[in-house]
Amino acid sequence: MTTTVDPTASPTMRASVLAEVGILRIEDRPVPVPAARQVLVEVAAVGVCGSDVHYYRHGRIGDFVVEDPMILGHELSGRITAVGDGVDPARIGQRVAVEPQFPCRRCRQCRAGRYNLCPEMRFYATPPVDGAFCRYVTIDADMAHPVPDSVSDEAAALLEPLSVAVATMRKAHVAPGTSILIAGAGPIGIICAQTARAFGAARIVVTDPVASRRESALRFGATEVLDPTAVDIAALDPQVDAFVDASGAAPAVVSGIRAVGPAGHVVLVGMGSGDVALPIGHIQNMEINVTGVFRYTDTWPAAIHLVASGAVDLDAMVTGRFDLEHVGEALDSDTDPASLKSIVIPS
Amino acid sequence: MTTTVDPTASPTMRASVLAEVGILRIEDRPVPVPAARQVLVEVAAVGVCGSDVHYYRHGRIGDFVVEDPMILGHELSGRITAVGDGVDPARIGQRVAVEPQFPCRRCRQCRAGRYNLCPEMRFYATPPVDGAFCRYVTIDADMAHPVPDSVSDEAAALLEPLSVAVATMRKAHVAPGTSILIAGAGPIGIICAQTARAFGAARIVVTDPVASRRESALRFGATEVLDPTAVDIAALDPQVDAFVDASGAAPAVVSGIRAVGPAGHVVLVGMGSGDVALPIGHIQNMEINVTGVFRYTDTWPAAIHLVASGAVDLDAMVTGRFDLEHVGEALDSDTDPASLKSIVIPS
Amino acid sequence: MTTTVDPTASPTMRASVLAEVGILRIEDRPVPVPAARQVLVEVAAVGVCGSDVHYYRHGRIGDFVVEDPMILGHELSGRITAVGDGVDPARIGQRVAVEPQFPCRRCRQCRAGRYNLCPEMRFYATPPVDGAFCRYVTIDADMAHPVPDSVSDEAAALLEPLSVAVATMRKAHVAPGTSILIAGAGPIGIICAQTARAFGAARIVVTDPVASRRESALRFGATEVLDPTAVDIAALDPQVDAFVDASGAAPAVVSGIRAVGPAGHVVLVGMGSGDVALPIGHIQNMEINVTGVFRYTDTWPAAIHLVASGAVDLDAMVTGRFDLEHVGEALDSDTDPASLKSIVIPS
Amino acid sequence: MTTTVDPTASPTMRASVLAEVGILRIEDRPVPVPAARQVLVEVAAVGVCGSDVHYYRHGRIGDFVVEDPMILGHELSGRITAVGDGVDPARIGQRVAVEPQFPCRRCRQCRAGRYNLCPEMRFYATPPVDGAFCRYVTIDADMAHPVPDSVSDEAAALLEPLSVAVATMRKAHVAPGTSILIAGAGPIGIICAQTARAFGAARIVVTDPVASRRESALRFGATEVLDPTAVDIAALDPQVDAFVDASGAAPAVVSGIRAVGPAGHVVLVGMGSGDVALPIGHIQNMEINVTGVFRYTDTWPAAIHLVASGAVDLDAMVTGRFDLEHVGEALDSDTDPASLKSIVIPS
Repeated sequence: MTTTVDPTASPTMRASVLAEVGILRIEDRPVPVPAARQVLVEVAAVGVCGSDVHYYRHGRIGDFVVEDPMILGHELSGRITAVGDGVDPARIGQRVAVEPQFPCRRCRQCRAGRYNLCPEMRFYATPPVDGAFCRYVTIDADMAHPVPDSVSDEAAALLEPLSVAVATMRKAHVAPGTSILIAGAGPIGIICAQTARAFGAARIVVTDPVASRRESALRFGATEVLDPTAVDIAALDPQVDAFVDASGAAPAVVSGIRAVGPAGHVVLVGMGSGDVALPIGHIQNMEINVTGVFRYTDTWPAAIHLVASGAVDLDAMVTGRFDLEHVGEALDSDTDPASLKSIVIPS
Repeated sequence: MTTTVDPTASPTMRASVLAEVGILRIEDRPVPVPAARQVLVEVAAVGVCGSDVHYYRHGRIGDFVVEDPMILGHELSGRITAVGDGVDPARIGQRVAVEPQFPCRRCRQCRAGRYNLCPEMRFYATPPVDGAFCRYVTIDADMAHPVPDSVSDEAAALLEPLSVAVATMRKAHVAPGTSILIAGAGPIGIICAQTARAFGAARIVVTDPVASRRESALRFGATEVLDPTAVDIAALDPQVDAFVDASGAAPAVVSGIRAVGPAGHVVLVGMGSGDVALPIGHIQNMEINVTGVFRYTDTWPAAIHLVASGAVDLDAMVTGRFDLEHVGEALDSDTDPASLKSIVIPS
Repeated sequence: MTTTVDPTASPTMRASVLAEVGILRIEDRPVPVPAARQVLVEVAAVGVCGSDVHYYRHGRIGDFVVEDPMILGHELSGRITAVGDGVDPARIGQRVAVEPQFPCRRCRQCRAGRYNLCPEMRFYATPPVDGAFCRYVTIDADMAHPVPDSVSDEAAALLEPLSVAVATMRKAHVAPGTSILIAGAGPIGIICAQTARAFGAARIVVTDPVASRRESALRFGATEVLDPTAVDIAALDPQVDAFVDASGAAPAVVSGIRAVGPAGHVVLVGMGSGDVALPIGHIQNMEINVTGVFRYTDTWPAAIHLVASGAVDLDAMVTGRFDLEHVGEALDSDTDPASLKSIVIPS
Repeated sequence: MTTTVDPTASPTMRASVLAEVGILRIEDRPVPVPAARQVLVEVAAVGVCGSDVHYYRHGRIGDFVVEDPMILGHELSGRITAVGDGVDPARIGQRVAVEPQFPCRRCRQCRAGRYNLCPEMRFYATPPVDGAFCRYVTIDADMAHPVPDSVSDEAAALLEPLSVAVATMRKAHVAPGTSILIAGAGPIGIICAQTARAFGAARIVVTDPVASRRESALRFGATEVLDPTAVDIAALDPQVDAFVDASGAAPAVVSGIRAVGPAGHVVLVGMGSGDVALPIGHIQNMEINVTGVFRYTDTWPAAIHLVASGAVDLDAMVTGRFDLEHVGEALDSDTDPASLKSIVIPS
């Protein structure tokens, strides 16, 4: 391991650990040591994601169960402070955004370029892998993406949800002139609206039952907002080329699919609860393509460009900042309707 | 209109007309006259399709309602006996398989090469357009596909369901080495199994609760058959690359989707009854692509090759032949478990 | 034919006719009558294209030879003043951009959605089909694309070269984050640079030996310009994802291909003179995809959005305006280095 | 490292080493030791490839120069006799076909699923990496593909050139009904003809100036053979959907490209000598896609199925067998017109 002479490379660091459901504790943990082809990153900023909140409140997401104390947080940026064998020491000091996944790189999915679907994936803040609400983390060197100075630490952290949006736009086949419907004006819906605009979408309809969230959507790229409790979304005229569900709400999924025209694309991003009765006949007769997005592959370079060029504004989405001692408040901030995106700053 | 001196070009012809639900009548109808760029085809053979049976028994399929007497039948072959303006008279005498659709050729879908999704489509035996249980029909010249002598009249008629299977394999991304699950061993399931084999599928699992149908599937290309009432299809191991539903049964759709592995493809061919509760989580986490097939575009040339080369055997699927006076029996033959495909021979 | 009571619907109109090589004459021609499913368009603005200039100076482009007097001009906008059978009369008065092609709509290419490759295509200002340097033209109704008021007549005319650029970006697989090299800063190169930026390209390198043209490129979207007589383009580092040749110059094509990295895309837009010795080894070892663009399919809606949204600025490219009597000067304006795009205004 | 008690795991093995241009020597070399996630393979059969012959005769291929003694041979099958850390010891004894490449698995190309284009690739028998004309080799465990007993050792070795053909058919978009032209009836041309048939090609035209090779092509899948010295290949009517050059001859490449119809595909497999003057105008006007194949990704599973199912017959292509002492004769066998594929059997 190569490192700079740096007092931060002390043997222990402070971390916010999910001890049990709803209970976070500040603990001293050993600073991790980068293995071969890894880097050590001093964490600068960490975004709070709905999945962090879910683990915090419920201790599980589907089959993933938190059984031992675990560090949450997987949207992060920082600075490289040490490198493992086989990594250019010149990278020390580099500002980076972390793609928080460790694929096996050898299975059929990894070999095919779909490493997000690797069955042996280890992912930050997904049991039993620790996340980033702490001072230092390690990551494979190729997953630490350099960011230019024009991208702030907070924006660099939020490249992770932006990556979800980039993956979504690709699957939704959004290109100049496309019309798109997005259900849900939470953080992911808002980032999707911005990203749709950056991909050239001509018509961007965002639906949300909450008026303040619809207003946010208009500020961040929507060309039109609708209240699904007042308007029949399924009857949208003309039909859209693409529908992205960022709500996880079954009625939104169903009406959204019905709003899509021939050969259109549906991408399910929002995590819902179980099975949903889908309009099979519409999918068949219109030959609609329905799929989901599970994380991302090869999105950081595009995401960095979108932010650096000003096409997507992530800084404006930050509505709260918290230190390691207040991660619980950060996680609870989603109950505040004025909150869009909370950031934890570990240092 | 150019024509040969042919007594068949008489002013009237016999047709089997669906007068009302369950009632067929032989009527004299005017022989149609080919418009510009159309041909007149003397019908040689017509396959009986489940949709014909459905109109016969129920008078409607979804929003398509038979309101006036209508001729059924849309799987057909024949011989060109006259041509309209702008069509080479040398085509008179040519044996052809008919692609039974009249797209508008000018809408967004037609211009994009997806003419099957044309919102102004007129399709044989779909109200209010007459079909082919009669002596003569007209069709646009480019929809009358020449067939070589090695393809029989009956096989040429069955190029229509084979076209559905070709469209399905394309959407299912079947190529050499693919593994595929097909639910339902009726005529479409059987043709799909044959076509999957011809596209190079390595593993072809067909499920059907009826033992005799599973045996048919084995004869026609399945490498493996399973009884879904006895085996948990969702737990298929290893998972398949593609799933085709040719059953229209909700439980088959659900278990089939669950049997598909990462980035796999699901194509819904079977027409079911309404909405189906789909496993959204599996679709998302595995990024599975779900779509449907609605008829076909550009399938006849490939289908003709598959039959001419012997890769697909349609003749062996014919289990009954009927004349115009016995169309009712042809339509009812689906209740005979030994029946696979019935043919009406109008001449 | 439905029409408004309009004195412009007089029996004759003025047209600038290419009588023989280098000789243009103003003639009275009959106002064309829209056939079924066509519209009559009163021409508002016509862009001058290099192919018009080529026919004017040489009387031919490859196998297309001007044998009879012909009207040039194929980049046009106007207003619908009459409609043929089967077209909604409500369209009369509509401002439109004309997609200047008449595909057969029935051949294999048309059916597949590649109508630009229709072997029976009739195209404006391509012998023997007349173009648009005149008061009125007819076109199939679906090829007359409505434009919003925010798009000027001149910009609407220039949607035609923008369509070439849109088709090019699609074939070059340009998306957010892509790096692209464009050879040639003439009108097509400049529009491609603008369009690349609108499609999200991160790095847009434009090469041209003329300094003033390189300056234009910087004004219109290039992130970097290079003089190919001073810099070794083949050695560009890092290599680019895509290369578009808009120069038609063999050395530019060769060095551009060498500048493309693994699995990159090369799109040849510029029309050159004959065969070019290409670096086969680089194409093979890098699995580079080389193709060309021949006109366009389904580009107007996207192009209209790009202009209406401000992502592409066509008005700023207009450097000269000419009436019908001065078409010759418009055609000769390409010899003026300060000229970028000349417009003919027939009315 | 886990291994069976096996006398073959002795410290040295015999190898045929290219000492200098044209000089092969039998040497004792250490048996390699599988690193973590690698396996040790006892070589059963090795095919002789044109690139082996080229290194033998010229000591280089393009920029790859043999500077130190090197073992040739990269088409191989064998049996696993030991495994490195992290590999299931149950694999010992397994018959495998070796995909002879070591990609870095971390670069942009590897991450995108195009590991064949990895700039850090190490490949068997490509300087300075040793190949397989020896008793034992090591390879990453995921690159050792299990083969069923129905596939012979020799066929398993020839899965390597079959993989090139599979990659080629994918890039050529060959599917049921496609028409394809293949230039060159050497081993690669012949395997491509067989593979085209297995992918469903309807018309398979093979050209070769040598009559006996044309006869081979007919035996192995061609539907038609032509002598390019007697027939104008560029004038093929109708044009083909795809052209594969397996000749490396410039005139064949040029006439082949001209023989391709609108939107067709050209794949350059044969390694030629330098630049070739290509018909740019035809590529542009027909929007033909020209690319090359450089090795392969994810082809062994499909190739194994093609052989196991009988769709491709590799055994029938073997025309000579040689032991380690006669590798020179194996390499020289290409001068015998009756030779198609020579196999070296090291044991």
